[in-house]
Amino acid sequence: MRVRPEDLDRSDPEGAIAAAAKRVSNWGRWGPDDVRGTMNFLTDERRRSAAGLIGTGQSFSLSQSFDMDGPQKGWRRRTNPVHTMLDTGTDAVAGVQGFPHGIGGADDVIAMPLQCSTQWDGLGHIFDHGRAWNDRPADQVVTGLGDAVTGIETVADVIAGRGVLLDVGRAVGDPAGELPDGFAITVEHLEQTIESQGGTSAVGRGDIVVVRTGRLARARREGWGDYAGGPSPGLSFTTVDWLHDTELAAIATDTWGFEVRPNEFDVAFQPLHQVAIPHLGLFIGEMWDLDALAEACAADGVYDFFLTAAPLKITGAVGSPVNPIAVR
Amino acid sequence: MRVRPEDLDRSDPEGAIAAAAKRVSNWGRWGPDDVRGTMNFLTDERRRSAAGLIGTGQSFSLSQSFDMDGPQKGWRRRTNPVHTMLDTGTDAVAGVQGFPHGIGGADDVIAMPLQCSTQWDGLGHIFDHGRAWNDRPADQVVTGLGDAVTGIETVADVIAGRGVLLDVGRAVGDPAGELPDGFAITVEHLEQTIESQGGTSAVGRGDIVVVRTGRLARARREGWGDYAGGPSPGLSFTTVDWLHDTELAAIATDTWGFEVRPNEFDVAFQPLHQVAIPHLGLFIGEMWDLDALAEACAADGVYDFFLTAAPLKITGAVGSPVNPIAVR
Amino acid sequence: MRVRPEDLDRSDPEGAIAAAAKRVSNWGRWGPDDVRGTMNFLTDERRRSAAGLIGTGQSFSLSQSFDMDGPQKGWRRRTNPVHTMLDTGTDAVAGVQGFPHGIGGADDVIAMPLQCSTQWDGLGHIFDHGRAWNDRPADQVVTGLGDAVTGIETVADVIAGRGVLLDVGRAVGDPAGELPDGFAITVEHLEQTIESQGGTSAVGRGDIVVVRTGRLARARREGWGDYAGGPSPGLSFTTVDWLHDTELAAIATDTWGFEVRPNEFDVAFQPLHQVAIPHLGLFIGEMWDLDALAEACAADGVYDFFLTAAPLKITGAVGSPVNPIAVR
Amino acid sequence: MRVRPEDLDRSDPEGAIAAAAKRVSNWGRWGPDDVRGTMNFLTDERRRSAAGLIGTGQSFSLSQSFDMDGPQKGWRRRTNPVHTMLDTGTDAVAGVQGFPHGIGGADDVIAMPLQCSTQWDGLGHIFDHGRAWNDRPADQVVTGLGDAVTGIETVADVIAGRGVLLDVGRAVGDPAGELPDGFAITVEHLEQTIESQGGTSAVGRGDIVVVRTGRLARARREGWGDYAGGPSPGLSFTTVDWLHDTELAAIATDTWGFEVRPNEFDVAFQPLHQVAIPHLGLFIGEMWDLDALAEACAADGVYDFFLTAAPLKITGAVGSPVNPIAVR
Repeated sequence: MRVRPEDLDRSDPEGAIAAAAKRVSNWGRWGPDDVRGTMNFLTDERRRSAAGLIGTGQSFSLSQSFDMDGPQKGWRRRTNPVHTMLDTGTDAVAGVQGFPHGIGGADDVIAMPLQCSTQWDGLGHIFDHGRAWNDRPADQVVTGLGDAVTGIETVADVIAGRGVLLDVGRAVGDPAGELPDGFAITVEHLEQTIESQGGTSAVGRGDIVVVRTGRLARARREGWGDYAGGPSPGLSFTTVDWLHDTELAAIATDTWGFEVRPNEFDVAFQPLHQVAIPHLGLFIGEMWDLDALAEACAADGVYDFFLTAAPLKITGAVGSPVNPIAVR
Repeated sequence: MRVRPEDLDRSDPEGAIAAAAKRVSNWGRWGPDDVRGTMNFLTDERRRSAAGLIGTGQSFSLSQSFDMDGPQKGWRRRTNPVHTMLDTGTDAVAGVQGFPHGIGGADDVIAMPLQCSTQWDGLGHIFDHGRAWNDRPADQVVTGLGDAVTGIETVADVIAGRGVLLDVGRAVGDPAGELPDGFAITVEHLEQTIESQGGTSAVGRGDIVVVRTGRLARARREGWGDYAGGPSPGLSFTTVDWLHDTELAAIATDTWGFEVRPNEFDVAFQPLHQVAIPHLGLFIGEMWDLDALAEACAADGVYDFFLTAAPLKITGAVGSPVNPIAVR
Repeated sequence: MRVRPEDLDRSDPEGAIAAAAKRVSNWGRWGPDDVRGTMNFLTDERRRSAAGLIGTGQSFSLSQSFDMDGPQKGWRRRTNPVHTMLDTGTDAVAGVQGFPHGIGGADDVIAMPLQCSTQWDGLGHIFDHGRAWNDRPADQVVTGLGDAVTGIETVADVIAGRGVLLDVGRAVGDPAGELPDGFAITVEHLEQTIESQGGTSAVGRGDIVVVRTGRLARARREGWGDYAGGPSPGLSFTTVDWLHDTELAAIATDTWGFEVRPNEFDVAFQPLHQVAIPHLGLFIGEMWDLDALAEACAADGVYDFFLTAAPLKITGAVGSPVNPIAVR
Repeated sequence: MRVRPEDLDRSDPEGAIAAAAKRVSNWGRWGPDDVRGTMNFLTDERRRSAAGLIGTGQSFSLSQSFDMDGPQKGWRRRTNPVHTMLDTGTDAVAGVQGFPHGIGGADDVIAMPLQCSTQWDGLGHIFDHGRAWNDRPADQVVTGLGDAVTGIETVADVIAGRGVLLDVGRAVGDPAGELPDGFAITVEHLEQTIESQGGTSAVGRGDIVVVRTGRLARARREGWGDYAGGPSPGLSFTTVDWLHDTELAAIATDTWGFEVRPNEFDVAFQPLHQVAIPHLGLFIGEMWDLDALAEACAADGVYDFFLTAAPLKITGAVGSPVNPIAVR
């Protein structure tokens, strides 16, 4: 029996979250000391077999840009990245750098929220009633010093394997391949997409699924507007069992927040995160740019590829910018 | 006829640089508008054939950590990365976050030089007498706004292909597999390493070569000391022709500065950079952690692998942190 | 004969700037090595006599807040200040800090443009055709390393003296004491304000004049909107001779940009700055909060006070945040 | 009866802290809602009378520099300030800024710990067993969002009044006017200094006392070394009653940590802070540069002055950089 959005009691997110958490919990699945959650599904063997997906050798960056023309508007101090120069070509030409034999240099720094653009949520990013992944007390995991247990560095070496694009925007959206804001992607939509895309789209254990909604394409055309935090298509809370049962290693979307916005309860904030991260131990990617890849997949009907999406190895980070590379 | 370190006129770096630049220049090779330099050697076809190098599926991060325990000491305002939290698990448990239905969150920011840890030099990083890659005036390329032409974003999608480890430390170093500080790696040393490592180590067009000197292993054992900028093994200036002739897409080392330090002239600062970046258009990686990969390569004698080393897509950056992933 | 706004040739800002620069230049006035410009007018003697202005001992901060609720919108990478915590009270209570005998601590960092909120423009902030204050070549003064000559630290110790409020908003504005956007404050308006305010408002050598337009009060009431860079009341370009002849040490307003916006030429950007900073050597303050002080001055009719407005001693900065303190 | 350092039970800091806190607590003294602590002692009347201390009008900055040549070494992520340019004079001269009529500009940003150089500790900086100033629970005061109650902005407008220099270095130190590291300044030393300096040095309610140890002078001469956190002269824990009884508004030193280092217990970290900030509600300044002021005071024997030491108005900050200005 499958839960549908209309079955949700909109007045009781807490109950729905608790029930879902009970159904899908992976706590203890990989032992009490586990720090990698669903990334455990991505084994060397799966990575090896994913190598066979490289066909033409064409590579795609699934990263949005990191610059001041980004979607952030300051909510909870999330700014767009501020990139400044330490040394410049103008300095070099002006002859003020003081280096010998005609060498000149440019160098730069950045200040940015780790989740300002294309990013991974780490397992320390979200808690449920004070519990972090694998039933750890959140205040023993993430302090002002960072995430001492499940920092993003714990998965720095493993996020490479089979990627599968589910282009829900094209499969069930408008002719431009876009879903409207507030559109809740259900399991039916995911299955319909897989079916319409054909055999390369079957998803299962250890896969990294990337779901295209078309939301970014719309932002690119119309301006950022409320891309960061405002209305958006996204996964329905009701997909939580599918996320569990498919045993994905990770999932990412071309939206700010992965879930449908507004959320599917009267008063709520990212309820699917509250189950998926601390209970499933699932890695979630946000603000990925899937448009060019989707064009290529649509052109030849092949929707899986070799994906490397390595977070920066920032000790104790609860998220990380990433430049995912799909090779097909 | 091959130039040897002892042939260099130590009093004339400027002359040596000019002569080398003349010999190895790639200016115009890919047209006047080119922004990718040697990354042009890394074609889809080479990337495709590199897929065949994935054997066991084992993956390795070649990244050092990004945290305050890094090598930087403030030279030219290069600090170690400062990672701070916006929200924490302690806040969540204390009940001060104001989110509904028991959800809690942690979020974080970072401020860092783009070349503080494992990184790529972009083509806008170094100039020769005011000229940037492809003979552009440096002051028209890199201003206070960043690199308007050859920003690292121009290669965000392509750095995936065949990687080859040249473990010079093991091949010609001490029993611990380390070269002493000041050791200039020559073409002979590179060739000797290739020969001793065997058939998987041949390097050529489009490869990404990673050279292990053992310098990082020593820093790990003895403390950072002067790892950042001080004495170090590294490539000899005399390898510049080899770098050109092999047609590598990129090269990286486990040292701060790629080149041998002190440099091989009486008064000099990174003379090999001055030819390699603006004239060759070569991508150089620094502070890569090659030790775990080297162990694996030594164990089975296979030295090539599928390497994805995607820079963050920071618009206008002259360098980028990177978490290179080797899959073998 | 006095220039009026209607006398300006709107099509020729460059001509007007050149003519004004010629009339009012202070180049060489304090010798070729001078780095303090009009701050030279603020002598110990004047500072001493300003002490007599302290009456009730009441003090006022003329600073806006430094936080994410500020006016910046990212123009030229100017963000609002990002203040993050290194340690918190929630950490202390959670017992995770590791300090002995029950001590707990909180600590914090900030990342901000130096001109994001209440601030001083330093003399290295603006150039005219490549010339900085005192006819220095701008590229020898301000490089990627900062302002090597006229950094704000050069006046770190002197900005304390007589302050005078000219509440032009109240004197010539609407009943709420506000001038409309685009309102160019002329010398007549300044003189009219001085006259209407009475004897304590006479301004002269070494004074720090603060001009209230009411623009901030409006932003506080209606939201920031385009406070940062958009339409605003402000000083007319035609006040440049008055700024010179009065021999003020400094002048500040409650607006983003000091000058009237839009500027008084068809195509222009801050033309009064272009004369006032490099040619006059005048210190300009922006985004000061004068409302509480203005209330007090209006209440008792005393418009001068002892003002301390010390910039942070940031080596090489071309501007600085400041918390000006008026004691009356 | 006065406690002397030799009376302290070195094995029981917690007991000594508890006993002292009981003796000197100001909790409730200014009502349950108070956020200003000892700054309440600095009334308008005292500020007014302090105006009379301005004699010659000479002003002194008591600020150290804010730049990379500072004392910080990364302890608990405290770096020296990183100041970078957004626009430069070299850019302006190169003609790449795109502004009209020959105007050019320079602009800059900073990233820094708020306590990296000359600074005020705010009342939210230190807790005792989870209690903040005025008996508030620390986790309700300072979260990842900052200090919601006693942020430094609460005293942005009041820190101007009578300053008194106690040059303990000159009065009881070596001929160079310096105290050795580990020297605990006791009440006797303070009284001896006051007596030797003469009548202008009496301290009492509402004063801001600045204590010179000579530690900074030594660092300037010999290099920073362990200035930040290492051995240093400083106030003895036993001065806590004197700090209470004198009813100072604030106190500052030319050292990193105000207290003598190493602290006067076998295992301890800043025990005097633990009483002075949360229990006394005392404002503590650190890393002030008192040397030039001390020269002037020694020259004419006048040790009090008008002091303005306005923190930046950073909402929610637990400390702030400051450029204190003494006018005498």
